[in-house]
Amino acid sequence: MSSGVGVSTPGNVAVQHGLGSLKAMERKVKVAEVVLRCLILGLGVLVASLVGTDTQVKKIFSIEKKAKFTEMKSLVFLVIANGIAAGYSLIQVLRCVVSAVRGSVLFSKPLAWAIFSCDQVLAYVCLAAVATAAQTAVLGEYGQAEMQWMSICNMYGKFCNQVGEGIVCALVVSLSMVSLSCVSAFNLFRLYGKNKGKAGEF
Amino acid sequence: MSSGVGVSTPGNVAVQHGLGSLKAMERKVKVAEVVLRCLILGLGVLVASLVGTDTQVKKIFSIEKKAKFTEMKSLVFLVIANGIAAGYSLIQVLRCVVSAVRGSVLFSKPLAWAIFSCDQVLAYVCLAAVATAAQTAVLGEYGQAEMQWMSICNMYGKFCNQVGEGIVCALVVSLSMVSLSCVSAFNLFRLYGKNKGKAGEF
Repeated sequence: MSSGVGVSTPGNVAVQHGLGSLKAMERKVKVAEVVLRCLILGLGVLVASLVGTDTQVKKIFSIEKKAKFTEMKSLVFLVIANGIAAGYSLIQVLRCVVSAVRGSVLFSKPLAWAIFSCDQVLAYVCLAAVATAAQTAVLGEYGQAEMQWMSICNMYGKFCNQVGEGIVCALVVSLSMVSLSCVSAFNLFRLYGKNKGKAGEF
Repeated sequence: MSSGVGVSTPGNVAVQHGLGSLKAMERKVKVAEVVLRCLILGLGVLVASLVGTDTQVKKIFSIEKKAKFTEMKSLVFLVIANGIAAGYSLIQVLRCVVSAVRGSVLFSKPLAWAIFSCDQVLAYVCLAAVATAAQTAVLGEYGQAEMQWMSICNMYGKFCNQVGEGIVCALVVSLSMVSLSCVSAFNLFRLYGKNKGKAGEF
């Protein structure tokens, strides 16, 4: 039976030690990636359903008025952005599972570039969506007296609360996407490691 | 006199070639960084001054009404974000100039982490600022009939135009910041190159 243990020269031990810590770090990054992608998947669906199904009917004298998210473009943007983020995360989680089952890391530069680009774009889109939705929410809650824009949340309290919950979840989604874009930047740019040929100063 | 040319074995030539292309890429990245930082510096100042000095007085019957950017929190956010981006870019341009004059690259991991973090945060802040300002601009231009929020740009045309120009410039600033955050991610994560100890599969 082969034990798999090589000859332990000091250099060999150092390389093995370096390899071990590198592997441990890579494993941590992988786990963080999967956890973040699952979080985005779950919360993205939650945001889309919270905001997308949010309606409230109000009777003002005999006129029925209905508030729904489609009346605000920024809320439509929020629902779409989080829906896309959730769908994309599902695909990415499946990719992570496949590579874990196969026990191999299919890490080519083009794939790393593709994942990096998608993560970056989605992080910025999700953040822009949550920023505009929050801006709309603030306007809805407090109005803008200088422009005669009235608050609407004292009329549609339940509607506003549900949108608020959606925005909080969407903020967590955005921050997770931001962290993920750092992870995928790490995965990509370390392929361009400085010590391929020692570069020194320039 | 020493010519500085070593013995040209085939392996030596290959290493020199790899070193040369690496140096060329690093130089291109450096030039792109300086150009982008100068662009952000210039346009950031332009945005802050365009939006920050924008006022319009309108006489409605005998009442004088003045539109200015401080009435909209999102425009204040835009001015502050672009001001900070411009100031930060100035410091970074100086750093680039100093390192170019010294002819050395002072690239430690902590410094790379600091630059990466600041660039990332500023990219997201600038993008969020331009998104909320654009949302306000759309509301100002078209209003929101369902909420009885009226358009104000037919009253304050000149004010709105100047804000619009500011937002276009701010969009360029944001996209430049996004590109820069990719550059600094590249500069940071390649320090964690995969080929320090050959990692293989895990």
